[in-house]
Amino acid sequence: MEKLKVGILAATGSVGQRFVELLIDHPWFEIAALTGSPRTIGRPYGEGVNWLMAGDVPASVADMIVQPTEPNLDVDIIFSALPTGDARELEAAFAKAGYPVLTNASPYRMDPYVPLLIPEVNAEHSQLIPHQQEAYGWDGFIVANANCSTTSIVLPMKVLQDAYGLDLAVVTTMQAVSGAGYPGVSSMDILDNIVPHIGKEDGKLESEPLKLLGSFNAEGKIDMAPLKVSAHANRVPVIDGHMASVAVKLGREVSVEEAIITMDNWMPSELIQSLPSSPEKVLIYRHEENRPQPRLDRDAGNGLAWTVGKIRECPVFDLRFVCITHNTLRGAASGSVLNAELLVKQGVIKHPSVAPAVAAA
Amino acid sequence: MEKLKVGILAATGSVGQRFVELLIDHPWFEIAALTGSPRTIGRPYGEGVNWLMAGDVPASVADMIVQPTEPNLDVDIIFSALPTGDARELEAAFAKAGYPVLTNASPYRMDPYVPLLIPEVNAEHSQLIPHQQEAYGWDGFIVANANCSTTSIVLPMKVLQDAYGLDLAVVTTMQAVSGAGYPGVSSMDILDNIVPHIGKEDGKLESEPLKLLGSFNAEGKIDMAPLKVSAHANRVPVIDGHMASVAVKLGREVSVEEAIITMDNWMPSELIQSLPSSPEKVLIYRHEENRPQPRLDRDAGNGLAWTVGKIRECPVFDLRFVCITHNTLRGAASGSVLNAELLVKQGVIKHPSVAPAVAAA
Amino acid sequence: MEKLKVGILAATGSVGQRFVELLIDHPWFEIAALTGSPRTIGRPYGEGVNWLMAGDVPASVADMIVQPTEPNLDVDIIFSALPTGDARELEAAFAKAGYPVLTNASPYRMDPYVPLLIPEVNAEHSQLIPHQQEAYGWDGFIVANANCSTTSIVLPMKVLQDAYGLDLAVVTTMQAVSGAGYPGVSSMDILDNIVPHIGKEDGKLESEPLKLLGSFNAEGKIDMAPLKVSAHANRVPVIDGHMASVAVKLGREVSVEEAIITMDNWMPSELIQSLPSSPEKVLIYRHEENRPQPRLDRDAGNGLAWTVGKIRECPVFDLRFVCITHNTLRGAASGSVLNAELLVKQGVIKHPSVAPAVAAA
Amino acid sequence: MEKLKVGILAATGSVGQRFVELLIDHPWFEIAALTGSPRTIGRPYGEGVNWLMAGDVPASVADMIVQPTEPNLDVDIIFSALPTGDARELEAAFAKAGYPVLTNASPYRMDPYVPLLIPEVNAEHSQLIPHQQEAYGWDGFIVANANCSTTSIVLPMKVLQDAYGLDLAVVTTMQAVSGAGYPGVSSMDILDNIVPHIGKEDGKLESEPLKLLGSFNAEGKIDMAPLKVSAHANRVPVIDGHMASVAVKLGREVSVEEAIITMDNWMPSELIQSLPSSPEKVLIYRHEENRPQPRLDRDAGNGLAWTVGKIRECPVFDLRFVCITHNTLRGAASGSVLNAELLVKQGVIKHPSVAPAVAAA
Repeated sequence: MEKLKVGILAATGSVGQRFVELLIDHPWFEIAALTGSPRTIGRPYGEGVNWLMAGDVPASVADMIVQPTEPNLDVDIIFSALPTGDARELEAAFAKAGYPVLTNASPYRMDPYVPLLIPEVNAEHSQLIPHQQEAYGWDGFIVANANCSTTSIVLPMKVLQDAYGLDLAVVTTMQAVSGAGYPGVSSMDILDNIVPHIGKEDGKLESEPLKLLGSFNAEGKIDMAPLKVSAHANRVPVIDGHMASVAVKLGREVSVEEAIITMDNWMPSELIQSLPSSPEKVLIYRHEENRPQPRLDRDAGNGLAWTVGKIRECPVFDLRFVCITHNTLRGAASGSVLNAELLVKQGVIKHPSVAPAVAAA
Repeated sequence: MEKLKVGILAATGSVGQRFVELLIDHPWFEIAALTGSPRTIGRPYGEGVNWLMAGDVPASVADMIVQPTEPNLDVDIIFSALPTGDARELEAAFAKAGYPVLTNASPYRMDPYVPLLIPEVNAEHSQLIPHQQEAYGWDGFIVANANCSTTSIVLPMKVLQDAYGLDLAVVTTMQAVSGAGYPGVSSMDILDNIVPHIGKEDGKLESEPLKLLGSFNAEGKIDMAPLKVSAHANRVPVIDGHMASVAVKLGREVSVEEAIITMDNWMPSELIQSLPSSPEKVLIYRHEENRPQPRLDRDAGNGLAWTVGKIRECPVFDLRFVCITHNTLRGAASGSVLNAELLVKQGVIKHPSVAPAVAAA
Repeated sequence: MEKLKVGILAATGSVGQRFVELLIDHPWFEIAALTGSPRTIGRPYGEGVNWLMAGDVPASVADMIVQPTEPNLDVDIIFSALPTGDARELEAAFAKAGYPVLTNASPYRMDPYVPLLIPEVNAEHSQLIPHQQEAYGWDGFIVANANCSTTSIVLPMKVLQDAYGLDLAVVTTMQAVSGAGYPGVSSMDILDNIVPHIGKEDGKLESEPLKLLGSFNAEGKIDMAPLKVSAHANRVPVIDGHMASVAVKLGREVSVEEAIITMDNWMPSELIQSLPSSPEKVLIYRHEENRPQPRLDRDAGNGLAWTVGKIRECPVFDLRFVCITHNTLRGAASGSVLNAELLVKQGVIKHPSVAPAVAAA
Repeated sequence: MEKLKVGILAATGSVGQRFVELLIDHPWFEIAALTGSPRTIGRPYGEGVNWLMAGDVPASVADMIVQPTEPNLDVDIIFSALPTGDARELEAAFAKAGYPVLTNASPYRMDPYVPLLIPEVNAEHSQLIPHQQEAYGWDGFIVANANCSTTSIVLPMKVLQDAYGLDLAVVTTMQAVSGAGYPGVSSMDILDNIVPHIGKEDGKLESEPLKLLGSFNAEGKIDMAPLKVSAHANRVPVIDGHMASVAVKLGREVSVEEAIITMDNWMPSELIQSLPSSPEKVLIYRHEENRPQPRLDRDAGNGLAWTVGKIRECPVFDLRFVCITHNTLRGAASGSVLNAELLVKQGVIKHPSVAPAVAAA
């Protein structure tokens, strides 16, 4: 099968390495270009990278020469693992030059013309893309995935919103150290400890869900969801997996039993189920009173599933629950790859061997 | 100075050992009896105990013979570290036999005649004692301290309640493994992990604050505080220190700045400040954005202080904040010792060398 | 393909669960019986077990009724995860009744008639089996795998022994908490800590290698290897993976470079390579100065590989090196399964669809 | 009492902060100058420092203005917490300018004219100082303390050397993350993991003991001890405390019982016992089979004591044992302070209120 050629920006960093790991055997995409920092440019990827993933650098990219991050790569799609400081300018340059840019960086997330996209939550937001191209005069475009902590809470919120309406959410997260990249969190700060502060995370948790749960309107814009979120993010001594404790006020009353059934039975659209990275069950409800747990549940569905548990009555609002996703897979690189797969299937990105579905998701 | 003789029930367990450590050099009390499990009865304490505290078993108790837990001890005060299963019957037997019983166990906490006592929060609840003695026909009495997780949140809640009124609280805790005793939490469960479930902890966090923040009324009862609490307790890989993230709806509007000043300036009554174990500053407000933290703040005030931080606006309610106390000191043994000191100073327990204060706290 | 029916003794414990996980889709074996503790007998396995493995209890065994551990099971092979206290008597009963017993327990490891078997190290020790049957009057037999910590060091020692002779070894291990089973090590003991003591582990590390590296002689016995081992075992806050730091005196001089090449190039016999569970590369030499590491290397070769690194000159002896294996896979359940595969291929256990190799390994 | 004025170089780093903490209430010394990095110079110490110690920046230094690290400070003694890269040049400049420099840095440790000093091990090595001053033409001088991992093993080695002779040692360390400073070890590297590599630590462990255990000879030089050490250093997920597992070949046979008694009874000279920081018991032998442990033993003797345990027969050599010290106290800042106290008592540093002892230690 003919594959689309992809380039990975900042491929030597920890998120970039995840992209390499995920795309090395992808059925639709093949890695054709890797960019990196000045220190690594011109050297084989296998030499320049401080490989943090399991096993060794995959043989098929070990000898690939690292290129500068300039919009002249011979690829069809860009996956960006650029750091925040570089992403705004460089991603715009690639979009302007005609590349579809799937980014994990934050600068464009809340841009009114950029889809903040999670296939299972708001696949229809990709309709923003032509408006983005017109507004900014770009031949390509940018699609962002959400912050890893936002991602962990937003699908269960979406399921409740669709079923019962969703007015308020009070969220406390317990987030893994890998969310801060490498070297990231000092061991001196986190062994036998919790740090109740993560950069601008509280603000992201309070704003991004409003866009993700918003609706694409007739004028080609996103109407923010009429929701208030209060969030407090904590760093905990866990390697991978962001967990959240959430209390919600719904639009109408619902019993705990019914809410559990709703969560348990939820499935994404058939189009999304057909994507190659889509796990068999993307929303898992666990009935044990002590689940979900980061170490036991983060790898569910190859790290792409949400695991939810402990739905119970909330004495203040309606319900409380606990949820978790894998922050560097679902909440980062795998999320971007799934977004690219969605755009192929939606016909937004043309693929020589994959026919778009007839109706958009 | 003549001291009161104290007995420690279940002195060989982890909370019992804390009592030994705290009372070994106490200015008002001296250890006169230790009780333990059948395996340890009749043997020297230093032989029977699996000492978990720092250093060695204190020399002055190492040779003390462990006694059965029967109400015939030659002591003036009882500190109880009994497990839940034994506490109801045995503590009642001691109270009936005339002993003041300061307990760390849960069975009597919500009993309408038993003060659930934290000196800085509700010293006046000790007025329940004569009503308890009359109702149950006891010559002695029982005074309980609160669950360790409840303790961690209740002083900041009290300060806000007094200043602004307090209607609702949504609480998520991150609790240390020492809260489960020894051996307690398996390392297999908690390394690189979070467990979102702790026995009946959610219920305790939702009910105990209502009594602690309630008021002693003219009929000799406690009116529960008109407050709703929603709580979710998590176990985290931290040795000591229970941290909580709290969102509150107050009785009236208040600015973040004013709330911080209120918290920062709060001091307990002079009577409480005069207690021998009372730390110089019992409520510490930290202004750094990444504090409090369990490892850095749990030992403040010899493990008796609350540390509060991160007061900020809550998009859903009025305010959010983070607080922490040391769970086996403030939240357990040290709390009971401070309760005993309070009762001496209030004149409820007679001490040969300590005059009661003229007015109750 | 027709499969051999296997029974797992003590299938509800943590090692027993590993056996279930490994055998659920095995090409040669199928699970036909599970035994468990009195509490679980007569109940479906999925109800009685406190499942500690990833995901859920496999559907094909969830409804299997747990049986008593008695030698009347309708199976061809027994895998034993029995605790030490029960293993001696029960395993002998099964062997007497004609079953091949592959055990992970310790009682028979140093028995002169029982092969202490690791296919890559001493496949020829299976020749002890007829002598065992004759000596004990058993129709079946017992084959033991080594202690998990011994396993971690013994293949690199074997490689050096074969190439250069091996006289002395000074070993210090750093062992994962899963080695103690569940609940095993208390979190109170191991968070932010090291415990320099593990039961009788030092003795096992000092004796088992002598048998494993010994040779089967003409009289049908094992000549112990002329080797002295000094060992000290530590428990560390790591979930899985036993690591060891080893200093060795060899039989002759060798350069570091040559020793690395020897280790790097070593391969087991073709018979062993052909076993279904055998990983592509079972002895991995890592050239980075900071490898191997438990979290990065324990899962190599599906948890069956040894990873070795840091071979360097030893100022006291000849060489030092560091090695690691996965303690509950290579060092426990997977090791037993591989032993069973070896015995099938050696023709010791008859299989309806697998022909024995012409010459023993 | 009149005190000597001390200056702390690199006072804003983690070791520098330890010096501040230790010297803030010292009976003989008072902090008179603090130097720091360009970013902090000219600002109050309390503003420039990222305080990592318990509690707050001590009030008496919070307003002290941070100075450049130049040899014009108005102080009597210099404590240096300079990083390796800066230490060689700057410490020499201070020594040349007449200051006694007590350094925690590595560049001068193996210099033949610089005492590598641990009072309990080799107090007489201070006799090198006049030779140093003559050789280098300095009015002041440099005294170094040993690497933190070397420190952890060297007193028990000294005790054995004095009693029985000491020929060989095979050492494996398990070292805390605080040994790497702040931020130091990434949490991504050390949670649920061990790293078998620490910079040049193996070499330091193999060379520094030879000097520390060497003897000052008639020509004013140190004769290295006739000892071989083989060492391998590991980083473990522990906050503080370096533990070592050591196997030793002695000069003569000794029973385990006798060696334990020797270790148990050892006391330093009276002069050393009289130093203000000297703990009551500086060498603690623990008889439990599972001690010493970092979390339980690192703070013994205010972090200045060695704790030794598990002396037992070694099948390869004579004895094995386990030892631990607090790496940032005994192995760093507290060690330097004790060195300064020793030099005062030896009369090498003149103190207005402390008379030197009649005979050197």
